Amino acid sequence: MRMVDVIRKKRAGEEMTAEEIRFVIDGVVSGSIPDYQTAAWAMAVCFNGMSDAETAELTLAMAHSGDVVDLSAIRGVKVDKHSTGGVGDKTTLILAPMVAACGVPVAKMSGRGLGHTGGTIDKLESIPGFRTELGRDEFFAQVNGIGVSVIGQSGNIAPADKKLYALRDVTGTVESIPLIASSVMSKKIAAGADAILLDVKFGSGAFMKTAEDAIVLAKAMVAIGTEVGRTTVAAITDMDQPLGRLIGNALEVREAIEILRGEGPEDLRELCLELGSQMLVLGGQAKDAAEARDKLKSAIDSGAALDKLGQMIAAQGGDAKIAGQPGLLPQAAARIPVLSAADGYVHGIDAEEIGLAAMRIGAGRAAKEDKIDYAVGVELIAKRGHKVVKGDTLAILHTRGDDEAARSAAEQIVGAYELGDEAPAANPLIYAIVSKDGVRR
Amino acid sequence: MRMVDVIRKKRAGEEMTAEEIRFVIDGVVSGSIPDYQTAAWAMAVCFNGMSDAETAELTLAMAHSGDVVDLSAIRGVKVDKHSTGGVGDKTTLILAPMVAACGVPVAKMSGRGLGHTGGTIDKLESIPGFRTELGRDEFFAQVNGIGVSVIGQSGNIAPADKKLYALRDVTGTVESIPLIASSVMSKKIAAGADAILLDVKFGSGAFMKTAEDAIVLAKAMVAIGTEVGRTTVAAITDMDQPLGRLIGNALEVREAIEILRGEGPEDLRELCLELGSQMLVLGGQAKDAAEARDKLKSAIDSGAALDKLGQMIAAQGGDAKIAGQPGLLPQAAARIPVLSAADGYVHGIDAEEIGLAAMRIGAGRAAKEDKIDYAVGVELIAKRGHKVVKGDTLAILHTRGDDEAARSAAEQIVGAYELGDEAPAANPLIYAIVSKDGVRR
Repeated sequence: MRMVDVIRKKRAGEEMTAEEIRFVIDGVVSGSIPDYQTAAWAMAVCFNGMSDAETAELTLAMAHSGDVVDLSAIRGVKVDKHSTGGVGDKTTLILAPMVAACGVPVAKMSGRGLGHTGGTIDKLESIPGFRTELGRDEFFAQVNGIGVSVIGQSGNIAPADKKLYALRDVTGTVESIPLIASSVMSKKIAAGADAILLDVKFGSGAFMKTAEDAIVLAKAMVAIGTEVGRTTVAAITDMDQPLGRLIGNALEVREAIEILRGEGPEDLRELCLELGSQMLVLGGQAKDAAEARDKLKSAIDSGAALDKLGQMIAAQGGDAKIAGQPGLLPQAAARIPVLSAADGYVHGIDAEEIGLAAMRIGAGRAAKEDKIDYAVGVELIAKRGHKVVKGDTLAILHTRGDDEAARSAAEQIVGAYELGDEAPAANPLIYAIVSKDGVRR
Repeated sequence: MRMVDVIRKKRAGEEMTAEEIRFVIDGVVSGSIPDYQTAAWAMAVCFNGMSDAETAELTLAMAHSGDVVDLSAIRGVKVDKHSTGGVGDKTTLILAPMVAACGVPVAKMSGRGLGHTGGTIDKLESIPGFRTELGRDEFFAQVNGIGVSVIGQSGNIAPADKKLYALRDVTGTVESIPLIASSVMSKKIAAGADAILLDVKFGSGAFMKTAEDAIVLAKAMVAIGTEVGRTTVAAITDMDQPLGRLIGNALEVREAIEILRGEGPEDLRELCLELGSQMLVLGGQAKDAAEARDKLKSAIDSGAALDKLGQMIAAQGGDAKIAGQPGLLPQAAARIPVLSAADGYVHGIDAEEIGLAAMRIGAGRAAKEDKIDYAVGVELIAKRGHKVVKGDTLAILHTRGDDEAARSAAEQIVGAYELGDEAPAANPLIYAIVSKDGVRR
């Protein structure tokens, strides 16, 4: 088989065979197919798409290109959650202890952030002493013991996806439903969970700009999950602004703790209750979303959810007092208000710009080897629907000091705010739920 | 400027600026843009095309990526001719002396063949002693002296095209009107002629499968030529079979000599008269095609055209006696008839297959470093329209001997013949002439 013929076939809009797809993925991993051929093929896929069968085959080929985790040593129905990226998205920090408190085992492997703000692992590492690198046996034992563990992704998970994604990122071939869907699902399948909950974002800061596009992507991922025997459900959620009020590693841990003790911003709590109830249903701990929601609320009200976070922190070597005293988390030296330059209603806050502003002051990595400053970040004061007048505080920078980076970040934050004369229409945070049974709006 | 943004722009179907096109071509030549990005961009161009302005800009950028030949030291209107490839195409060997005999100076730089049969330079080198590497001054002096010289392409002509074409060849991005048009025209423009005659082939053995596709390509190339101030005319010619009867290096020189002395196959003579008259008009040596045709016929009848070939051979160190005695050319040891396996009318002869068969017995290079056997090749006995019965001779292999390669080649030649029960409809050899004034059929 010659790669040039496979490219030509895809360019002509024909369907690739399973054998051809495996040939491509094997070649990407081994390096026998040069990047320039892979890039041309990916661009042809962007234009001509892939059938459901091709997408499922591509996903499986990527999932099996490296280690496939076997979670069978953990009792219960393991439910994994994945978000298609989102600035200020600290839902894993909240959902993991919350659903574990309701009986769903959470054996979660997360990534570090590259660009923008840190990933879940970076956020957890802002807790002094917290260990994110556990051995497989220790990881399993912890989940069997206290019901929850979140660790860094170790081993060689879907290396084909890693290589392909890196190439797509620099060749303008990221935006493709089958390529995005197979990328996400290959990692989830390799990570071994029995059921998968996807949080598919739409809006200016997301891959998918509209709810309908996000539904198309969600359907593609649910189809893959169904095809390979993993129950998959997707929530379609708005990302016209960052989630919650705090962006930055320790700041996001603080906000997660707020939610777990029944406080914190409404949008974040609502999203976590909705996603959490889907996880409880998938994990067989509630018969429907309403029952699941009641269970989650009880876990918050009783303090069980916050306790579970404390147990997880303790089990992984961190300072468990933090669950009760988030003030012990690293704090930035300076607080600099960012002021509105105009009057108006907040219609949207470009999440990507906020993420980049946070990165600029040290909350994320511009390059892989950069060190994150856990304490810094952005606190949003005005969110969608707020009315501001010129000079009002839009946000507060948590930063090392009033330096050049802080001034640039402040400017970027002002620019990220989209103001309008009229109050914006209310957007539901959760637009739809997509499962194999269809789309529920 | 970042290449990934340029790729995304082209993927989105937007028009690239002149600056962006120069950025791409500079990056391809310098190596600052990696091949995988160039390949993704080329695939996006295949899908979204290019405007006339983009195509002209791309052509100029590639033409100026290396040496641009200055032919102003040669008197008269220099007319270049280019064929979009063709097995058995020995028109340059005929046209160069023929139009030179009619007063159009021919300062032609040609390439070697890669794959299939040899190029014009390989064919000329089958003439004992013939030198294809002349210095610039010697080249100019010869054209000013006897009106004609054909040499190997030296120097660094359109290196951007060379790199881009090599990449397109292995990434399934060859078939694209703007990329093919700019590739051809960049080399012609860099080669310095005042006017350009293009022979655009269509048929099973050509890039363009139909006459209408060939017209689209021709229009694109004529538009580029017009845009950059080089009068350009294209002949759209049929390639449902190889041109003439002889394929192979010395064999093609022999057939060229036959035409120049008023003999040889009708299709080849007709094509050369048509292309030659266009060249005479472009070169200002005839007011219209009819007058040009008369002049060319006179040059053949008077022997002036054949004399001109003899002068060129002598001037470039070859044995000028060959013009009168083609039997002095290298001859293969064996002649092996290839017999028809069935009855029928010849509807077509796959030129690519014939070319590959000729390569198999040594007439072309499979790899760049292969040595060509000038004497070997294929002599076609039955051509389109001929009626054959099983056992009739379709072709004769001129080969070193009855070896394995010869047997495979014979089999391939039998397979290249498409036979039908009815006589095929007559196809005009020249389907249309495309100029800035439009398409004349």
